Amino acid sequence: MGPFEEIIGAELLAKGVSILLRMVAVLIFAKITLHFGIMIVDKFIAPVSGVSRIRMEEKKAKTINSLLKSILRYFIYFLTAMIILDTFNIQTAPIIASAGILGLAVGFGAQNLVKDVITGFFLIFEDQFSIGDYIDAAGVDGTVEEIGFRTTKIRDFGGQLHIVPNGSFDKVTNYAEGDMRVLVKVQVAYPENIDKVLDVLEKMCEVAAEEIEVVTTGPKVLGLQDLADSGVEILLWAKTQPMEQWGVTRQLRKRAYDAIKDAGIEIPFPHVVVIPRGEAKEIDLDIE
Amino acid sequence: MGPFEEIIGAELLAKGVSILLRMVAVLIFAKITLHFGIMIVDKFIAPVSGVSRIRMEEKKAKTINSLLKSILRYFIYFLTAMIILDTFNIQTAPIIASAGILGLAVGFGAQNLVKDVITGFFLIFEDQFSIGDYIDAAGVDGTVEEIGFRTTKIRDFGGQLHIVPNGSFDKVTNYAEGDMRVLVKVQVAYPENIDKVLDVLEKMCEVAAEEIEVVTTGPKVLGLQDLADSGVEILLWAKTQPMEQWGVTRQLRKRAYDAIKDAGIEIPFPHVVVIPRGEAKEIDLDIE
Amino acid sequence: MGPFEEIIGAELLAKGVSILLRMVAVLIFAKITLHFGIMIVDKFIAPVSGVSRIRMEEKKAKTINSLLKSILRYFIYFLTAMIILDTFNIQTAPIIASAGILGLAVGFGAQNLVKDVITGFFLIFEDQFSIGDYIDAAGVDGTVEEIGFRTTKIRDFGGQLHIVPNGSFDKVTNYAEGDMRVLVKVQVAYPENIDKVLDVLEKMCEVAAEEIEVVTTGPKVLGLQDLADSGVEILLWAKTQPMEQWGVTRQLRKRAYDAIKDAGIEIPFPHVVVIPRGEAKEIDLDIE
Amino acid sequence: MGPFEEIIGAELLAKGVSILLRMVAVLIFAKITLHFGIMIVDKFIAPVSGVSRIRMEEKKAKTINSLLKSILRYFIYFLTAMIILDTFNIQTAPIIASAGILGLAVGFGAQNLVKDVITGFFLIFEDQFSIGDYIDAAGVDGTVEEIGFRTTKIRDFGGQLHIVPNGSFDKVTNYAEGDMRVLVKVQVAYPENIDKVLDVLEKMCEVAAEEIEVVTTGPKVLGLQDLADSGVEILLWAKTQPMEQWGVTRQLRKRAYDAIKDAGIEIPFPHVVVIPRGEAKEIDLDIE
Amino acid sequence: MGPFEEIIGAELLAKGVSILLRMVAVLIFAKITLHFGIMIVDKFIAPVSGVSRIRMEEKKAKTINSLLKSILRYFIYFLTAMIILDTFNIQTAPIIASAGILGLAVGFGAQNLVKDVITGFFLIFEDQFSIGDYIDAAGVDGTVEEIGFRTTKIRDFGGQLHIVPNGSFDKVTNYAEGDMRVLVKVQVAYPENIDKVLDVLEKMCEVAAEEIEVVTTGPKVLGLQDLADSGVEILLWAKTQPMEQWGVTRQLRKRAYDAIKDAGIEIPFPHVVVIPRGEAKEIDLDIE
Amino acid sequence: MGPFEEIIGAELLAKGVSILLRMVAVLIFAKITLHFGIMIVDKFIAPVSGVSRIRMEEKKAKTINSLLKSILRYFIYFLTAMIILDTFNIQTAPIIASAGILGLAVGFGAQNLVKDVITGFFLIFEDQFSIGDYIDAAGVDGTVEEIGFRTTKIRDFGGQLHIVPNGSFDKVTNYAEGDMRVLVKVQVAYPENIDKVLDVLEKMCEVAAEEIEVVTTGPKVLGLQDLADSGVEILLWAKTQPMEQWGVTRQLRKRAYDAIKDAGIEIPFPHVVVIPRGEAKEIDLDIE
Amino acid sequence: MGPFEEIIGAELLAKGVSILLRMVAVLIFAKITLHFGIMIVDKFIAPVSGVSRIRMEEKKAKTINSLLKSILRYFIYFLTAMIILDTFNIQTAPIIASAGILGLAVGFGAQNLVKDVITGFFLIFEDQFSIGDYIDAAGVDGTVEEIGFRTTKIRDFGGQLHIVPNGSFDKVTNYAEGDMRVLVKVQVAYPENIDKVLDVLEKMCEVAAEEIEVVTTGPKVLGLQDLADSGVEILLWAKTQPMEQWGVTRQLRKRAYDAIKDAGIEIPFPHVVVIPRGEAKEIDLDIE
Repeated sequence: MGPFEEIIGAELLAKGVSILLRMVAVLIFAKITLHFGIMIVDKFIAPVSGVSRIRMEEKKAKTINSLLKSILRYFIYFLTAMIILDTFNIQTAPIIASAGILGLAVGFGAQNLVKDVITGFFLIFEDQFSIGDYIDAAGVDGTVEEIGFRTTKIRDFGGQLHIVPNGSFDKVTNYAEGDMRVLVKVQVAYPENIDKVLDVLEKMCEVAAEEIEVVTTGPKVLGLQDLADSGVEILLWAKTQPMEQWGVTRQLRKRAYDAIKDAGIEIPFPHVVVIPRGEAKEIDLDIE
Repeated sequence: MGPFEEIIGAELLAKGVSILLRMVAVLIFAKITLHFGIMIVDKFIAPVSGVSRIRMEEKKAKTINSLLKSILRYFIYFLTAMIILDTFNIQTAPIIASAGILGLAVGFGAQNLVKDVITGFFLIFEDQFSIGDYIDAAGVDGTVEEIGFRTTKIRDFGGQLHIVPNGSFDKVTNYAEGDMRVLVKVQVAYPENIDKVLDVLEKMCEVAAEEIEVVTTGPKVLGLQDLADSGVEILLWAKTQPMEQWGVTRQLRKRAYDAIKDAGIEIPFPHVVVIPRGEAKEIDLDIE
Repeated sequence: MGPFEEIIGAELLAKGVSILLRMVAVLIFAKITLHFGIMIVDKFIAPVSGVSRIRMEEKKAKTINSLLKSILRYFIYFLTAMIILDTFNIQTAPIIASAGILGLAVGFGAQNLVKDVITGFFLIFEDQFSIGDYIDAAGVDGTVEEIGFRTTKIRDFGGQLHIVPNGSFDKVTNYAEGDMRVLVKVQVAYPENIDKVLDVLEKMCEVAAEEIEVVTTGPKVLGLQDLADSGVEILLWAKTQPMEQWGVTRQLRKRAYDAIKDAGIEIPFPHVVVIPRGEAKEIDLDIE
Repeated sequence: MGPFEEIIGAELLAKGVSILLRMVAVLIFAKITLHFGIMIVDKFIAPVSGVSRIRMEEKKAKTINSLLKSILRYFIYFLTAMIILDTFNIQTAPIIASAGILGLAVGFGAQNLVKDVITGFFLIFEDQFSIGDYIDAAGVDGTVEEIGFRTTKIRDFGGQLHIVPNGSFDKVTNYAEGDMRVLVKVQVAYPENIDKVLDVLEKMCEVAAEEIEVVTTGPKVLGLQDLADSGVEILLWAKTQPMEQWGVTRQLRKRAYDAIKDAGIEIPFPHVVVIPRGEAKEIDLDIE
Repeated sequence: MGPFEEIIGAELLAKGVSILLRMVAVLIFAKITLHFGIMIVDKFIAPVSGVSRIRMEEKKAKTINSLLKSILRYFIYFLTAMIILDTFNIQTAPIIASAGILGLAVGFGAQNLVKDVITGFFLIFEDQFSIGDYIDAAGVDGTVEEIGFRTTKIRDFGGQLHIVPNGSFDKVTNYAEGDMRVLVKVQVAYPENIDKVLDVLEKMCEVAAEEIEVVTTGPKVLGLQDLADSGVEILLWAKTQPMEQWGVTRQLRKRAYDAIKDAGIEIPFPHVVVIPRGEAKEIDLDIE
Repeated sequence: MGPFEEIIGAELLAKGVSILLRMVAVLIFAKITLHFGIMIVDKFIAPVSGVSRIRMEEKKAKTINSLLKSILRYFIYFLTAMIILDTFNIQTAPIIASAGILGLAVGFGAQNLVKDVITGFFLIFEDQFSIGDYIDAAGVDGTVEEIGFRTTKIRDFGGQLHIVPNGSFDKVTNYAEGDMRVLVKVQVAYPENIDKVLDVLEKMCEVAAEEIEVVTTGPKVLGLQDLADSGVEILLWAKTQPMEQWGVTRQLRKRAYDAIKDAGIEIPFPHVVVIPRGEAKEIDLDIE
Repeated sequence: MGPFEEIIGAELLAKGVSILLRMVAVLIFAKITLHFGIMIVDKFIAPVSGVSRIRMEEKKAKTINSLLKSILRYFIYFLTAMIILDTFNIQTAPIIASAGILGLAVGFGAQNLVKDVITGFFLIFEDQFSIGDYIDAAGVDGTVEEIGFRTTKIRDFGGQLHIVPNGSFDKVTNYAEGDMRVLVKVQVAYPENIDKVLDVLEKMCEVAAEEIEVVTTGPKVLGLQDLADSGVEILLWAKTQPMEQWGVTRQLRKRAYDAIKDAGIEIPFPHVVVIPRGEAKEIDLDIE
């Protein structure tokens, strides 16, 4: 064996040792990362509820916990294999690139999912509504039953349950964050004395203000809302405690109806002036 | 032969050996990966149903199973060819890049497919509805007949079958997750004594509450809903077991109609006040 | 000639040989790939129909077959040229990058095409509808005449032919996958005895159930659907074989009309109560 | 001059020669590619019409031909300059990257153009409609006057010309691919004997079937379509040759009108039952 | 100074010379490119109008000319700086990457601009409409006043000026590319003899055909369009020269009105059949 | 030990030292960056309010402060680990690429978030509205209660609270930035003398201009708005201080109503001319 | 110290010097770039108004000026740090990549901002409208109050201020770039002599043409617009100076009303022909 072979041999040896060292380093690193990752998963989504940072039912938590761990494990196996292959100077770019394209496609498809979770986070963090609030959002309205990671459950007054992905929430309208307004429209006939009508309704309002407890402001008469086809439209206004607006509306309407009837004021039917043909032109031109 | 040629020769030899070794490594790795991939496919989508993780009909499972295996096989062949070519120091970047662009185009086009599967996963995992539930989602409503990987089948009351890609589901409204509300509107003429009418309807409700079994709460009279053109609108309310709401609505309407007719209360036709031309102005200005 | 020149010469020689070897390898590889690609094309889209995996008319198959082969050939020529250029150490990155950008633009533009084909695949694979089915999808409805690779042809009842790209299909509504519902509304005047009316209609239904063969369930009287302005609305219901729903609806309506007329029951015209001006207030306040 | 300088010199020389060789290779390659590209352009879009693969007016063909050649020439000049610069080891990545970003922006903006051409290709290849067909697509309808590379020209019945980019075509409705349906609705008064009316119309249909030549099936009486407010609606049906549907509709309507009038059957005006106030309640409750 | 230092020195010297040479090459190249770019800018958008390829007002041309030159100059400065830095082996990737991200953001934002220009090019190249044409596009309609690089100006009949970015044009409807249709609907009372009415209108049409010069075809009577509530609707049809359709419509309507009135034919007011309550049932059931 | 081993040893030693030095440099750099990052976070979002640049409630600030620090810390740990691994010549590209794909997916999903914050910044910076302003934006309207980082809270007149992500704001309509217009429509009967009516209303307006303090311009009579079916519509116009427009509208309407009634002017009911059948034709043709 | 150590030492020294030189070069380059950047910022957005190229209020200019300088400074610090780290052969790719992903996310989110500024530039450059013009764009209409960098302020006639991001402008409709059209519809009863009516209106138009100064063309009588249910609709037309169209419309209407009334021409109320039941059939069939 000549000195040249020695050099080649020494080089190969050095290379071999170096490769071995790297492989060991990679494996140790992978082990530690995996361990660390599992710890993080457990910290956030503990299989035993009450310990984790994110509140979930125990069963669901278990499922997600093990799902996340599986994904993590396979992902680290894949990366480790890549790196070791690479250590042997075998080209891994094609594999990575392919995985990347796949990841991209999934990424595009998973946009909504990411959006759901981000919006969900803000829904909870910003405290836009709480369970039990009556809200109107994403085209449905009802009482919030559950605010979840990805979806929110809203119970409609009709009884049906709306399951809304959080990403569908754009603007949220909350009916439980302050006094609610009540508007009641009453139409009275044109011949009635409007000032008398307003008087009757104002007295009714004073009584109602005392008798209906959930009313917080008013009720009061706002004034003439419209000079309609067959009568004058008067608007009543009040503020009530949240969720009482519908009941109070019905109650106020009943009281207004009673007050008007008792005072002998006419609620108008649709009116029509009938002109016999012969008189139409005279009327139009006001010839008498 | 001079020492220089020797060096060249030794180098070429070393290179040749190294290339051979790498090729063998790559082939073994490819073999193992393929084997491993097929195992995973079989684990999730077994050609024999009942064994796999994902429930599917046996025939469909077989088709998908063999389809996935084909894709996997060709993909690994392609990668192996790339890596071996690369081992010869032949530039594979152009091929990879081209495949990438193609993959990207497909990725864009396949967004919906990915979205369908992801949403489908959550539909099932979150248990938003079960087979047999009456739901309203993606613009159609009906009874769920099948929840699939990519699509969900909904049978309309009209008999037609809606096949909805899961990605089209945004918010889902489930009618089978609690008591359903029933609303019945009854109009009575203005001259009627409203308190008497409310009385009659309340009595009817008490009887109905006992006689209609599927009613869970109520029925009760909510109050005055509207002071309409020709009559006063009264609202009845009840809660029923799921899917009984339509029948109960019809039944309650029949009972209300009977009760009102028996009590001699008038259901108003549209009214119109006819004013002969001569009197219109006097009426308007209340001159008598 | 000095030893130095020799080294340079030897190196150049070695390089030349190496380049030649690589070129030969690349050419052989290109040849094989091309051959293999043409085989695959022929396997899926044979110029002679009946042999290929995808069913198409022979003429169309030929066109696509030769089109695909052309694309494949030019693509491999292009790649081979790139790789050989690269072998000479000439920078091909600019060319590749440019082609990539072009490919990207085409990829964006071709999204719909990819989407059409993917959806088409699922339409066929999942058997959402067959030729001859009456469906409602993508905003049109009619009988399916042809399910194609990229488009589906639907014949409207009106006679016109809708050619719909498969990617436009979102949810599909199939009218041929089960019994169809028939709903007939009948209005009778308020003074009529509703129980008698229901009786008449029920008898009619019993006869119809026997006489109309395509009816599978019912017909039966569902009950009071509405207390309308001028009459009571009653709802009849039945299930028929697919595509018979329109005929049965017309038949049931004729029978209901005849039954009602024979029984001397009034179908109401619109009613209006006319109040001479003088009496309006008295009526409204129920002063008699 | 020492041996060291010699080595440096020899190296520089070798490098110079190598660069020169590469430059020559690049220039030859560029020349060939340019020649080849121009040949392809000429093959597809010949300046003299009748020779090229794509049919266009001669003047337009010339414009596009020279436009494409210009683009090709500048593109190859740019690439060649890049590669030569690169041969001098001057960093061209920045230039390429910048051009790429520009290309990307243009690519995004040009999506619609690509989409137009792709859809146009399929419109022609799949033969969805021919010149002269009456179609309804992209929100307009009319007779196709020209199917182009990028746009299709549709002449509206109103006389105006719709110029529609092919990418705007989604689903296409073709009115020239089969017999067209004709529907005529006739209303007759309730007191009329419906069976007699049906008889009269059926006889009319038999005559029409013989006398109207463009009718291919029917006309026939489909049956009762609606029990409307003031009369019974009867539906007539026929199939005609394409484009005759509007004329036949008008003709059938005229014949039905004549037949009904000759038979002394009443076409109802809107009906209204007028109830004097005093009787309303009695009627409603059927007190007589 | 030892031989070793010499080698280092020689190497540094060689490197220095090489760097200097490269810098000079880059600077010359940059100079040439800049000169060339400015020439191209001047060729297309000359500061003196009438010389450039693209027609623009002189003032605007000057502005764009100097704007483009500025952008070009800064862009080449930036690139040159990058390349020279690179020559010193200083990492420029970070700078390039940052500029790229910025460029990408601008690219996304500038999509619409690119789209406007591309569509504008086709609008002009394909000659979809000329100045003075009455068109309907992008949701507005009016007379084209100016077709620009990025926007088109359309003058509404109402007088307002619509400035539409070319990218907003999708389909274009041109009213100036052929004869326009005129439709006039005339309603006559049911008791009238329809054949006589058609006769009267046909005679009127014959006269109109001769007297109205801008009419190119017709006018003629198309036939019965509808059996409406209170009368029979008859349709008149004609073709006129472009832009005369509105005037001819009004003229034809006037002539039809005069002809009908002269012939003593009744144009029906809305009809209603009034049934006193007592008779309603008898009528409905045809009891006489 | 031979000289060759020495070289290898020396090289390994040099390499080891170099790696060590680099690791130390990286760690120090990481430490400094972390420190610096925490300082920046504290500067902008101080845990103690009143010190930071961005105004937030103290509790929220604390949460975000610690959240940002956590993200920063993990991010720097991750980067440092990557760089150190890289120092050992272990391929980190796969890890980076994977993280990049993940980041991309998150980036896509987080678009809305970024958009919210950017728009929010401009909402505040450009001072489009202040707390207490009544605005109409993003499809809701109400009084602004809180302008936040990511969302804005708007209190509806109905009492409900709209929580609107800033990115949903497109155009903003501010009702508090100038005088508001009031429009009141009054209909009077055709026979009335219009000039007299205008006179009456103008006088009323003069009085109102003095008596209603919040009115800034007018009120005045604009003129005839419509010749409606049953009367002439007259338009009143005024400008008021912001937020007073609704009250002033009602007040003006009341005053107009009183003025008209006092002047004995008729507000028309709907009119209809009734023609007995026999006279219709005579009337239509004006035969007397 | 052996010769080997010397070589190592010399190499290290050479490397150290080279690194030092590069660092100095980078720092100088960074310094110059920063200086240059600040100069550019100052040139365009001077803290003292009247000097900068872009017109802004002084206060705003200051804010943006210092904001831009801060961003520039931190950006250059970041780049310099990267490059120096890189000089030490420490891998900066991970850091760059991370920053890139972040930049991309921001880039996506900032699309609208870029679009706003680009559109804003064209709004101003193309002079689509000036301050004070009445325009209709982006779904709002009003008088332009301010054209800004990112938003445009439009004052509604109702008094509210619309703040519209420039990117929301698509097509712009300008009401201040030419004469505006005025259309007035007048209905007269059928029995009136239409030619006489046209005569009366034409005379009125002649007077109006002289008396209303802001009218530029007309007014004139266009002709019969519709044969409506109860009367003939006649159309008047005029052109006025911009912004006078609403006033002129009201004025013309008043004049037409006066003219018609003075000429004793009837404006029709809605007509209805009432047919007693007994006569309906006779009338329909024209039996007399």
